[in-house]
Amino acid sequence: MAWQLKLASHLRASPLRCSVSRPSGAWLSCHHQHAPRHFSSRVSLAAGIPRVSPDSTMQSQTTLAHTTRRTLTAVASCRLTLDNINPNVKAAKYAVRGEIATKAEEYRVRLAQGDKSLPFDSVIFANIGNPQQLDQKPISFFRQVLSLLENPLLLENPESLRTNFGYPQDVIDRTKVLLADVQSVGAYSHSQGAPVIRDSVAKFIEQRDGFPANPQDLFLTAGASSGVSTLLNVICDGPSAGVLVPIPQYPLYTATLSLLDAQCVPYLLDEHKAWGTDVDAIKENLSKAKAAGTDVRAIVVINPGNPTGASLSAEDIKSVLEIAAEERLVVIADEVYQTNVFSGEFISFKKRLRQLQQEVPGKYDNVELASLHSVSKGMVGECGHRGGYFELVGFDPEVAAQIYKYVSIMLCPPVIGQCLVELMVNPPTEGEPSYELYRKEYNGIKDGLRSRALALYEAFQKMEGVECQEPQGAMYLFPTINLPAKAIEAAAAENRAADEFYCLQLLDATGICVVPGSGFGQKENTLHFRTTFLAPGTDWAQRIVKFHSEFMAKYK
Amino acid sequence: MAWQLKLASHLRASPLRCSVSRPSGAWLSCHHQHAPRHFSSRVSLAAGIPRVSPDSTMQSQTTLAHTTRRTLTAVASCRLTLDNINPNVKAAKYAVRGEIATKAEEYRVRLAQGDKSLPFDSVIFANIGNPQQLDQKPISFFRQVLSLLENPLLLENPESLRTNFGYPQDVIDRTKVLLADVQSVGAYSHSQGAPVIRDSVAKFIEQRDGFPANPQDLFLTAGASSGVSTLLNVICDGPSAGVLVPIPQYPLYTATLSLLDAQCVPYLLDEHKAWGTDVDAIKENLSKAKAAGTDVRAIVVINPGNPTGASLSAEDIKSVLEIAAEERLVVIADEVYQTNVFSGEFISFKKRLRQLQQEVPGKYDNVELASLHSVSKGMVGECGHRGGYFELVGFDPEVAAQIYKYVSIMLCPPVIGQCLVELMVNPPTEGEPSYELYRKEYNGIKDGLRSRALALYEAFQKMEGVECQEPQGAMYLFPTINLPAKAIEAAAAENRAADEFYCLQLLDATGICVVPGSGFGQKENTLHFRTTFLAPGTDWAQRIVKFHSEFMAKYK
Repeated sequence: MAWQLKLASHLRASPLRCSVSRPSGAWLSCHHQHAPRHFSSRVSLAAGIPRVSPDSTMQSQTTLAHTTRRTLTAVASCRLTLDNINPNVKAAKYAVRGEIATKAEEYRVRLAQGDKSLPFDSVIFANIGNPQQLDQKPISFFRQVLSLLENPLLLENPESLRTNFGYPQDVIDRTKVLLADVQSVGAYSHSQGAPVIRDSVAKFIEQRDGFPANPQDLFLTAGASSGVSTLLNVICDGPSAGVLVPIPQYPLYTATLSLLDAQCVPYLLDEHKAWGTDVDAIKENLSKAKAAGTDVRAIVVINPGNPTGASLSAEDIKSVLEIAAEERLVVIADEVYQTNVFSGEFISFKKRLRQLQQEVPGKYDNVELASLHSVSKGMVGECGHRGGYFELVGFDPEVAAQIYKYVSIMLCPPVIGQCLVELMVNPPTEGEPSYELYRKEYNGIKDGLRSRALALYEAFQKMEGVECQEPQGAMYLFPTINLPAKAIEAAAAENRAADEFYCLQLLDATGICVVPGSGFGQKENTLHFRTTFLAPGTDWAQRIVKFHSEFMAKYK
Repeated sequence: MAWQLKLASHLRASPLRCSVSRPSGAWLSCHHQHAPRHFSSRVSLAAGIPRVSPDSTMQSQTTLAHTTRRTLTAVASCRLTLDNINPNVKAAKYAVRGEIATKAEEYRVRLAQGDKSLPFDSVIFANIGNPQQLDQKPISFFRQVLSLLENPLLLENPESLRTNFGYPQDVIDRTKVLLADVQSVGAYSHSQGAPVIRDSVAKFIEQRDGFPANPQDLFLTAGASSGVSTLLNVICDGPSAGVLVPIPQYPLYTATLSLLDAQCVPYLLDEHKAWGTDVDAIKENLSKAKAAGTDVRAIVVINPGNPTGASLSAEDIKSVLEIAAEERLVVIADEVYQTNVFSGEFISFKKRLRQLQQEVPGKYDNVELASLHSVSKGMVGECGHRGGYFELVGFDPEVAAQIYKYVSIMLCPPVIGQCLVELMVNPPTEGEPSYELYRKEYNGIKDGLRSRALALYEAFQKMEGVECQEPQGAMYLFPTINLPAKAIEAAAAENRAADEFYCLQLLDATGICVVPGSGFGQKENTLHFRTTFLAPGTDWAQRIVKFHSEFMAKYK
C-alpha cells in the first residue's frame, strides 16, 4: 500500500480511515474506528505523502488531546487496495475533472469568501461543456412541462398556471400526453424508454434525415455517456477487441475501453484540414492494429467534434462509411453536438448511410451503425438531467436483444430525462403558443455561442505562436500552442507536460480554466488546449491575449 | 448465427434487419436497406425459429407485393453476432422483466381495447416493486419542491404558489437551499453528488445510527442498481474473484457478476428461520469456493430482504460482520428497504459495525462496508427518478479515489434524483408547514403496505401446500408452493420449471402477474413465487386463493 500511518502502540491495532484530497476533487473521510465521535482527522495526499491536519468540524477536546498525543505509526490493512482491485479501473484515465479544475474551484471559493489577493476577480470555467453552470438559461417550454410532470396536481388549476405564471396551453397539453404514457415520472418505464417518447424520437430522425426510423431500434439512455458505455460493453469481447478512436478524442472512449480491457486503436484527425478525418491515417492504424493481432470491430466518430469543434463534410462521412463497409467495422457516431453547427449543415451518419445504400447498391448493406444524441448539448444544455438516446441501424436483432437485456439490468433511464428528450426532438412548432418564445430563446443561445466562438477565434489569431481552425461547431476550440523552448524546459523541470504548465499559468494569472490537449490526445510534438465558448461575455478572451503575450515574453 | 432468412436471388445481397419480439418485451425493427420506405417486415423469434408477419404500420402495397414474392433465402451477415459479442453480456441473466411480465402487458392492452374474452377484468402487476405504476401517489412535499426546481421562475410568484396551489413556505425555502448549491438541475454536479445533498445524507445517517458519517464518504448514484454496479466493478479483478450472494437474491447481483466474469458464491438463506442468514451455510460455501481457487472478496446482504421480505436481527447482522472480520470480506449491505419494516426495527450494518467496534476492541477494525439506499423504495417509491447513494466505511482512501474516478467517467448522477435523495433524508419535521400532510401521506402508504401484506399472508395461510413466513419488511412475500406430482409432470411436459408453469397459469386464470422463484434462486427441490403487495385493494388475494384451490384439484 502506498500510504501508511503510524500510531502509538495503544492504538496500533486500530487503523485509521482517512480523508484524502485528490486532484479529482474527491474527498474521503477519516474516523478512528473505536471512538468515532471522539476522534477524527483529515489526511491530505499530496504527491503520495500524507499530511494530517485537524478536522475542526468533527473534533472534541478529547479528540484533540488524543490527536496530539498519538504518533502516526499504525498500518492500514484494507481488504481492497490499489494492488488488488480491478486493474482495468485503475488503468482508466479521465482527466476532464482533473487538477486544474480543482484549483479553479478553490480560486472560486476564495473569491466568494472575499479574498482580494488574486490577480483576477472571477473564475471562468471554460474546461467543461456545462452550459447551465455558466449563464445559459434553460429553455422555458422545456422547464414548464417538466415542472408539471413533477407535480401534476398543478394541472388542476390551469387558469392560474396561465394567468399567474404565463404557462401557455401547449405546455399543459404536452404534459398530459407524456403523463398518459409514463403515468408518473416516479415509475420505472420500459427499459428501452417510454413508447411515446421513442415514437417522437423516430419521427424526429425521419424528419431530420428523410429516411424512416423505427421506435423499436431506439434506446433512451442516461446521457450519451451511458449509451457509449452500453455499446462498448456489448461490442468488446476481451483484450484482443479493438475500437478505432479519433485523436484528439473525448476521454470517455479511452476510459471505457480501459475498463473493458479492450484496445484503443487511435487515428489522428487532420488539423490542417479543419480537423477532418484522414482516410490514410485510419487505414494505416487499422493495418498496424490487425498486424498486431487486434480484432478491430468498430470505429468511433465524434461529429461535430469534441474537442476539435470540427463539423464533418459529406465526403468525410462517406469515406468513414466506405472503410466501415470494406473493413467490416461497426460505426459509433457520437452526434451529440448535431445542432451546434455554425458553418454548413449537419449531416447525420444515418442519412449518409441511407443515401449511399441507395446510390451504390450492395456495397453499404452490411454497415452497422449506432448513433447517439443527448439533451446535454445543443441549445438544450440540460446535462444534469442525464437524457439521451441511441439508434441502432443494421444490427443483428439477436445482438439488439442482448443490448436490451444489458440495459434492463439497470431497469430504465431517468424518466424525467426521457421526457426532456421528447421535448428536445419535438419542440413547439410555428403557430403553437410557445413557439415564439422558444425560437427567441433558442436563437439567442445559438447566436451567443457563435459570437463568443468568433471572439475567441479572433483573439487566438492575434496570439503569437497560436494557430486555430475556424469555428465550425460543438462548444469548443482546440488551438495549437507553439511554446518557446524555455517554457518547455521550465515545464519539464516541474515534471509537467508543457501544455499543462501553460494552462496552470493561465489559470493562476487570469482565473480562466481550460484543459490541456494532453487530456484528449494530440499529435506528437504538438501542444493544444481545449476551451469552451460558453462563459458569458467575450472580454475574457482579452485576458487570454494579455496572459499569452506576457508568457511568451517571459520564456523568450 | 442462430437465425437465417432466405430471400429470392434479386435480393440476395440485401440482408434484412428484423423486428424481433423477445420475451423481455424488446421490439427491434426491420427494414430492408435498399428501399427503407417500401419494405418492412417483422420477424418474431419464438424458441429460436423465425416467423415472419406483415407489419401493417410500415408496409405499402408495393411492400406487400415484395413480401409475398420473396422466399426467405438470404443470409444476414452482421459484424456483431451472438457468437462474437462480449460473452459476459450473453451469459448474464435478468428475468425480472421476463416472459410472464410480457404476457401480462399483452393482457392489459387487450382489456384496455375492450376484449371481453378473458376470465378477469384487470391485470395486477405484482411482479415488480414499482409503486407509482400502481396506485401509490407521490408524496406532495417531494413533488412540490421538484416542480420548483424544474422551473425556478415559479418562485417569482410565491403568493400564487401559496394561494392557488397550496404550496407551503417550507417548500419554497427548501427549493432555494437546493438551488443555491446546484445552481440549476440542468447543470452537471460534482461526480460524487452535490455537496449540500451529501451533507444532508451524512446528517441523516448520523441521526439514524448515532454514529458520525462524513459527506466525503458518500456517493450519490442513479438508483441503488448503479451503486451496486460501481462497487462490483471496482471490487472484482477477474475470473477468480468471488462474491458471496444470498439465495434467493435480487438478480442484479448475479447479472453484474456475470458481466464482470467474476464468481457468484451463493449462500442459502434459512427459510425456516424467517429467511435469516445461516452462518454455517455461509462458511461452508466460502470454504468450498476457496478450495476451488476462488478469491472471495465480498459478501452481499440484502436487508430487508428481496425477494424474501425478511428483516435481519441484530444477531444475524453481527454474525455476518463476524465472518467478514474473520474472513476479510468487504460487506455490501443493500439497505434500500430500510423504511419498509413492519415488525421490529431496522438496524443498519453501519450502526451494528460501529457498536461492535466499541464492544470488542480490535476485532472489527478492518471491516470494509458499503451500504446502499435508494429513493425507489420505502414510502418514497420514486423509481423513475433514479436516485440513491452509497456510503463507504473503512475503505482504503486510494481505493475510494478509484471509485471516484470510475463514477466521474459518467460525469454525475441525475441531479433531480439527487435532490429527491435530499428530500427523502431530510423530510419536513414537526412544526414545519408541510409536516402534517407529509406524516399523513407517509403513514397512509406504510399502513396500506402493511395491511395488504397481512391480507396476502392470511390468504396464503389458507392455501393447501403453501407456506409463507410472516411479513417483516420490504415489498414482497416469497411463499413456498408444494405442488402435486402431476403438476410437476405437466410442467416438465411443457419444458417449463414447475414454478414458472404455476405462475403462468395463475396469470392466465386471474390476471395476477408474479415472478417464479427460479428467477431469484431457491433451494433445490423447492418452489416459490415472489409477489409484491403494492397493488391497490386486498381482494385480489382471494383471486389467488380460488385459483390455487382449482389448480390443486386439477393436478391432484
